[in-house]
Amino acid sequence: METHEFLLDLFMILVFARIFAEIFAYLKLPPVLGEVFAGIVLGPSFLDFVEVNQIIKILAEIGIILLLFEVGLETDMRKLQKEGLKSVIVAVFGAAFPFIVGYAVSYYIFNLSAIVSLFIGGTLTATSIGITIRVLKDLNKERTSAAQIVIGAAVLDDIIGVILLIILFDIAVMGQINIERMIRIIFLIMLFFTAAPVLAMLMSKIIHVYDREFRRLPGFLPTIIVSLILFFAYISHIFGAPEIIGAFAAGIALSRRFFLPFGIALKSDPHFTEKVENQMRPLIYLFTPIFFVTVGLSMNLKVIDFTSIDFWLLTVVLLVVAVVGKLGGAFLLKHISFIRKLIIGTSMIPRGEVGLIFAELGRTVNVFSNEVYASLVFVIIITTIIPPFVLKWLFEKEEFS
Amino acid sequence: METHEFLLDLFMILVFARIFAEIFAYLKLPPVLGEVFAGIVLGPSFLDFVEVNQIIKILAEIGIILLLFEVGLETDMRKLQKEGLKSVIVAVFGAAFPFIVGYAVSYYIFNLSAIVSLFIGGTLTATSIGITIRVLKDLNKERTSAAQIVIGAAVLDDIIGVILLIILFDIAVMGQINIERMIRIIFLIMLFFTAAPVLAMLMSKIIHVYDREFRRLPGFLPTIIVSLILFFAYISHIFGAPEIIGAFAAGIALSRRFFLPFGIALKSDPHFTEKVENQMRPLIYLFTPIFFVTVGLSMNLKVIDFTSIDFWLLTVVLLVVAVVGKLGGAFLLKHISFIRKLIIGTSMIPRGEVGLIFAELGRTVNVFSNEVYASLVFVIIITTIIPPFVLKWLFEKEEFS
Repeated sequence: METHEFLLDLFMILVFARIFAEIFAYLKLPPVLGEVFAGIVLGPSFLDFVEVNQIIKILAEIGIILLLFEVGLETDMRKLQKEGLKSVIVAVFGAAFPFIVGYAVSYYIFNLSAIVSLFIGGTLTATSIGITIRVLKDLNKERTSAAQIVIGAAVLDDIIGVILLIILFDIAVMGQINIERMIRIIFLIMLFFTAAPVLAMLMSKIIHVYDREFRRLPGFLPTIIVSLILFFAYISHIFGAPEIIGAFAAGIALSRRFFLPFGIALKSDPHFTEKVENQMRPLIYLFTPIFFVTVGLSMNLKVIDFTSIDFWLLTVVLLVVAVVGKLGGAFLLKHISFIRKLIIGTSMIPRGEVGLIFAELGRTVNVFSNEVYASLVFVIIITTIIPPFVLKWLFEKEEFS
Repeated sequence: METHEFLLDLFMILVFARIFAEIFAYLKLPPVLGEVFAGIVLGPSFLDFVEVNQIIKILAEIGIILLLFEVGLETDMRKLQKEGLKSVIVAVFGAAFPFIVGYAVSYYIFNLSAIVSLFIGGTLTATSIGITIRVLKDLNKERTSAAQIVIGAAVLDDIIGVILLIILFDIAVMGQINIERMIRIIFLIMLFFTAAPVLAMLMSKIIHVYDREFRRLPGFLPTIIVSLILFFAYISHIFGAPEIIGAFAAGIALSRRFFLPFGIALKSDPHFTEKVENQMRPLIYLFTPIFFVTVGLSMNLKVIDFTSIDFWLLTVVLLVVAVVGKLGGAFLLKHISFIRKLIIGTSMIPRGEVGLIFAELGRTVNVFSNEVYASLVFVIIITTIIPPFVLKWLFEKEEFS
């Protein structure tokens, strides 16, 4: 690809994302869906103008990494820890139910093979943390305690998803699960979770001191903070966890209030956190739409044959499993109002890009037929597009109740 | 390339660039050379850790595009026009002399073939606008009238360079020059230069009004300004001019004082220009080092056999041609002090990435032998690395004289 062609692609992505986001905001619809919609319009479903290539994929990845960093930055560790158990319940039930029930209905009702059924279960499992978080941010609700439960659960869910992906890949390619490797990965992820925030915190202290005392050249903060985020994203990958989790850890380390293990509280300089936020904001605003447009670009509506009855049967059943699984986790929680349970459950429904990655894997290893793939893509699209509307409405309802 | 590998590459680029830039600044050396040096260290010359791939190339291109935008933003159109004739003299002489004399010495003294001699002339022609401008900025001299002459000359020089590149490519591949196409390209570039600033100005007015009156979502400015820059870089390419020229035009249109043709003066809202600068700065700081590191990554010192006498003979002669050519243009100017002529001439010497592009083209179309290629790479390295030191010293001298 020539440079100038890429410049045009990037131009189209940014401008379409902005136009549709503003139109959606004007129509009081969730702006993030405007960005996804921009991708659907630009992609193979309609105009076929922009193709997802490696460069766009990487810029999109940087977008979601920066978004997760920002979420980490705004996260109150104490709230996150306080609501930790609730997050675990929501995440574990919300992953186990769609996986097991998705497998069971595919295998027993639709008579699909065991491996196809397993992949269907996997595809229905993981929540798209990106869509969920952007909706909460757009609604200005990311600091509510419901949002903290959701963020914690979505992070856990992402880790469960990545482990499941490895298991399914092993089964599809090698025919069996490598238990030893599995245990090692889980151990490494736990190690990462203990060590990363501490390391990130120390590095952020060094950055802070250097910025205040020694820095000679302008532009120190954006470059060094981005470097820190990239480093933790990379380390996170090396330890077997998703890259965005590393970015989230880096964000938490730089947030206003951070706790080391064993209850050692460290208060960040709030001015420094604010400075970091101000410098990072233009970067976050520039890159995150690329991610959401790419989600839309990856949704090819043309693969779906809407006239097939088999398609609708499978789709509707899987859709019910996908929705009930995530709502169910929230309804297990105690001491929380009905409407807040609905908010938490609905927040976990969007499958977005994570579901698409599973579906794509299933197709490339020849597990999914075109029909099954089409059903899953449609389930992902519906679970991604509907919940933001419902959430907005639920938050409005909650305010007046 | 896997995403996480790229994250690590980008991390290394950003961190090494920053470390070496800070060290160079501490040693009172030009920081931009620290970034180039970071590239030499990371690249094939030493560690061989980072390889220039398409993604890095595109991010580097975005870096230089953003830098040229910033230069345009800070450019005073009136000064640029006032010094226009001087810029033309510096650019034309500074391109013609190295080309003609470079050709002549290669052909008549070193008995190289006509086509090799032409390519040598071409490689010696173009100034690296990026290096020059960064040095002026690092020294805080970019608004002096000497700098304005240099900026104007470097922009013209870049256009001459791109036309020359097309001519040489035609000769090497097709064996003859396509005169008709040549004239069309020159016409289109002139058209672009007349129309682009006006169009960019109108678009920037629309952006300004929209931002003030209608905008509903945060993050409007960075996204939309970057889109504007990408659009003009693309259009510039379509019209046959270098992409960075489009970015420069977009910057000029948003600068504090802008004049439409026929003397119609339009004053921008200074608060708006300031807002644009503040929002764009983190992006510029993040991306430009990627460009300068890439320049260093592209300089492979290992291709050079320093023990060869032939190498030193050719190198020294070409180096003299390269330096005298650019100084000569400045010394044709009237009513300018001796030291200022030296400043202008020295500013035009760095060949940087533009020279490397010519040398690379010469090698890929099998025009250059390894020996000639090595000589040219070394000439480019020397002309890139020495002038920033000299410039710094000259500016200090000028202040005390």
